[in-house]
Amino acid sequence: MQIALAQINFIIGNFEYNVHRILEAIRKAKKVNADLIVFSELAVTGYPPLDLLEHRRFVEKAIECVHQIARECDDIAAIVGAPSFNPSDSGKVLFNSAYFLCDGKVKSVHHKSLLPTYDIFDEYRYFEPNREFQIIEYKGKKIALTICEDLWDNPPVEYALGRSRLYTVSPMKELLKFHPDFIINISASPFEYNKIEVKKTIFTRYARETRLPLFYVNQVGAHTDLIFDGGSMVISPEGKIVDTLHFFREDFKVYLLEDVMKDTSVDFSFEQDEIEQMHDALVLGIRDYFAKTGLKSAILGLSGGIDSAVATVLAVEALGHEQVKVLLMPSKFSSEHSVTDAVELAKRLNIEYHIVPIQFIVDSFLTTLQPYFDGLPVDVTEENIQARVRGVLLMAMSNKFGHLLLNTSNKSEIAVGYGTLYGDMNGGLSVLGDVYKTNVYRLAQHINRNTELIPINILTKAPSAELRPNQKDSDSLPPYEILDEVLFRYIEQQKSIEEIVSEGFHSEVVERIMRMVNANEYKRFQTPPILKVTSKAFGQGRRMPIVARY
Amino acid sequence: MQIALAQINFIIGNFEYNVHRILEAIRKAKKVNADLIVFSELAVTGYPPLDLLEHRRFVEKAIECVHQIARECDDIAAIVGAPSFNPSDSGKVLFNSAYFLCDGKVKSVHHKSLLPTYDIFDEYRYFEPNREFQIIEYKGKKIALTICEDLWDNPPVEYALGRSRLYTVSPMKELLKFHPDFIINISASPFEYNKIEVKKTIFTRYARETRLPLFYVNQVGAHTDLIFDGGSMVISPEGKIVDTLHFFREDFKVYLLEDVMKDTSVDFSFEQDEIEQMHDALVLGIRDYFAKTGLKSAILGLSGGIDSAVATVLAVEALGHEQVKVLLMPSKFSSEHSVTDAVELAKRLNIEYHIVPIQFIVDSFLTTLQPYFDGLPVDVTEENIQARVRGVLLMAMSNKFGHLLLNTSNKSEIAVGYGTLYGDMNGGLSVLGDVYKTNVYRLAQHINRNTELIPINILTKAPSAELRPNQKDSDSLPPYEILDEVLFRYIEQQKSIEEIVSEGFHSEVVERIMRMVNANEYKRFQTPPILKVTSKAFGQGRRMPIVARY
Repeated sequence: MQIALAQINFIIGNFEYNVHRILEAIRKAKKVNADLIVFSELAVTGYPPLDLLEHRRFVEKAIECVHQIARECDDIAAIVGAPSFNPSDSGKVLFNSAYFLCDGKVKSVHHKSLLPTYDIFDEYRYFEPNREFQIIEYKGKKIALTICEDLWDNPPVEYALGRSRLYTVSPMKELLKFHPDFIINISASPFEYNKIEVKKTIFTRYARETRLPLFYVNQVGAHTDLIFDGGSMVISPEGKIVDTLHFFREDFKVYLLEDVMKDTSVDFSFEQDEIEQMHDALVLGIRDYFAKTGLKSAILGLSGGIDSAVATVLAVEALGHEQVKVLLMPSKFSSEHSVTDAVELAKRLNIEYHIVPIQFIVDSFLTTLQPYFDGLPVDVTEENIQARVRGVLLMAMSNKFGHLLLNTSNKSEIAVGYGTLYGDMNGGLSVLGDVYKTNVYRLAQHINRNTELIPINILTKAPSAELRPNQKDSDSLPPYEILDEVLFRYIEQQKSIEEIVSEGFHSEVVERIMRMVNANEYKRFQTPPILKVTSKAFGQGRRMPIVARY
Repeated sequence: MQIALAQINFIIGNFEYNVHRILEAIRKAKKVNADLIVFSELAVTGYPPLDLLEHRRFVEKAIECVHQIARECDDIAAIVGAPSFNPSDSGKVLFNSAYFLCDGKVKSVHHKSLLPTYDIFDEYRYFEPNREFQIIEYKGKKIALTICEDLWDNPPVEYALGRSRLYTVSPMKELLKFHPDFIINISASPFEYNKIEVKKTIFTRYARETRLPLFYVNQVGAHTDLIFDGGSMVISPEGKIVDTLHFFREDFKVYLLEDVMKDTSVDFSFEQDEIEQMHDALVLGIRDYFAKTGLKSAILGLSGGIDSAVATVLAVEALGHEQVKVLLMPSKFSSEHSVTDAVELAKRLNIEYHIVPIQFIVDSFLTTLQPYFDGLPVDVTEENIQARVRGVLLMAMSNKFGHLLLNTSNKSEIAVGYGTLYGDMNGGLSVLGDVYKTNVYRLAQHINRNTELIPINILTKAPSAELRPNQKDSDSLPPYEILDEVLFRYIEQQKSIEEIVSEGFHSEVVERIMRMVNANEYKRFQTPPILKVTSKAFGQGRRMPIVARY
């Protein structure tokens, strides 16, 4: 039996496009005489469709598309993800389903049993969990069909409060009762650095324990903040990874089941380190935001600091140098090297840049406000005015020329609120909002691994917002090496003050950092969507009360 | 048996405060010889605690508080909401529980069975649903204890896709097997106008069908965007509402069970119309945001239009006239009446106002940008600069004087993206973001019901953003009477184009409105928290993809 895996970059809600891509892949699979082609989870709608699932016409259209696709499945069978209606009059109205298409029609519909409802996932918001299991019989083989989380009943992962097993049901245990010949898992599993290892463990363990080959098909491509990394896998019954599809781009491959059965390949090792993975994920995240919204060009504020330098390089990699524009907006507090370093980078990248001094506009604000501010000490107000003038200038260029403003704030500063709302926090998409400052440096080193693209001075100078004379980040914040370690433990690991202090951090520092994080929920509420690359990004995956004491 | 109901305004995560308030109420109940006192859902943590529930120390502290409260329960029993740990090693780690406290200790713990996971609710994100039912036996009576949604197994409400019955279990059906003597429901049910009628129907129906008295205790007070309206109820076995506690404020009352059993009061009728309800809810929403964050004063931009006028009046009602400051920021496009109407309102409200013309600053932007904009037509860019200059001025006053900026955008304009990101969309809290423009007018009429507080000219002139000469909202938007009707059907009722058109609206108008709504998800993503007063507010309750086609 020949099995084709189609790893496609869908567009959420664009049925015409998605169906076109699915039919194209089916025809390609038919040409090479594949018996079965497998697509990713909710392929027809793209994942995640979110509250579009609450619109009846949306769901009906998706189901119509499935039937249209079925008509193409004459000499081939296909497994296609799409929602289906729950025939019961109680429980959620929908299932998250995989349709088995064969002989030109829908042969059976299989529903997802384990519905992830944590972090960025909200599946129980829409779907009823499946509790009735069935096997697919096709050309003499029995197929155990699972959908993404269905194989995550006992993952090597600790979720909130240290829990691994979030479900009381094991779909694979139920399906094994039918004595399947192989396992299929269709997924839409968003990228987090290091998650590839987790998936590898889950899939190889299931294959080994069941002595069955396993075909895993993941979605690829970014949808706003979520980046799906592809990397579909084929596992032998011995639990060896026979092959993987590309990471971070579309792919299509056909496998002979019998070959996979007897394959004893050495174990797959994924060669990218976490910074390379983040890098590739972020580039895909930027590229797809533009490609899927139809926007062409980006604008960024280039300060001469490390964050905007790295974000600009990533934007150039994603969009090409002709499509990236930068503004350099020095004030009277900007050091000379801020401008010269930024200019040097812009030249090396061959991108359009403009130097737009802001002091004249800042002074017009201060003059206007003078009657109210007279006699009061200069404080963060004046610093924010500078950041906001830059924000308005960037948005003016964005509005006039149709460039999308990319935000360059990093995760460390977003965490502690070291940024100006409606100023440097502006943007349609946050490139580095899930990358701690220390990892921004690593990204820069990775970018410079062969040649010095980012001027070395940008990497070596002390970080500064340059909003008052001789300002340094270290005036207001703990050193980033400490800050990032503490933030990681609080945000990703959800540890308490006591636990973090017990790991050797000063309690005053830990308490201060936590106070800053908690006090800035209101700012983060208005942050642009952040490309997620860790297990806990700010945004939909982390829902904290704004008005609260903790 | 004497039963006390304690309707308290808790602060999320402020255990010290919440426990203090709970103990205070217990002592008060003991003084009047009550046998039992009932508090609202998750009383100890405040509702909703959101992802604070993913921090072990937070949950542990909540449980410690329950035991502390139990020690006060010597001559009285209490029912207190708090999370508890799921002893099983699979499934979610927590239950949403009600603790029955008696004889100085925790006698039993009862878990919520139906976990709302729709709109603003995410309970399955945190909690395992209960499937084992037990009754409380106390002083010769059997008590069926339910938690909020547990009685909503078959409500007179259609959720997404027309579904009423979201669950396959009926907790009350299970509890009836124990032959209870009365029903308790502890809730944290957020305000939506018209929802009071729904609750009344649910509770009276359950009482009547079971022939049991029902005591419903709701949380009161606002938490960021969610406003809990209180209005706890006591229902007789005949399904008559014997009494209600106050709406929109704290209350405490004691009932003799035997009186409730035989009460045949005429049915309760709630006398406020929907606009009065919205009004009171919004005032509470503003007041609690300030009270619970410790902020004292608000600032608003007063344009001379209806939205900022209504928002300012609500702020004055919530905070007092000394604590509300306004800026009037005319440009060269501002009409004379904009300033005179706004000044007149400020005088009538006796609030501090300043007139800060913006043209000087706007010109400094245009001069700075002139080299790039030279020869290009004036467009929305220049309009946005004006709105953003106002935004920066308001934030400067906010930063310098510690006023919180209140946002005055209405639901109609937020829906269609008729507002400037980082301009008039700025603010820490959106007062009117869930109020359609036509309802803003109704709010104004309600405010003016006795005396003309809002100058009549503000109500009668044509709405305009005044960002270009002689601009009117009706240049860019359908008339608000049409717009709001279509928006309501699309947003609240999730109807399709075809359905809305079939109700008699022009298809071009409907399609245009839907396109505008869909194209502006990116703006709404960065909108401040919006006080929710309808069944579907923008924000956490409506999760739409930004990058998508639909």
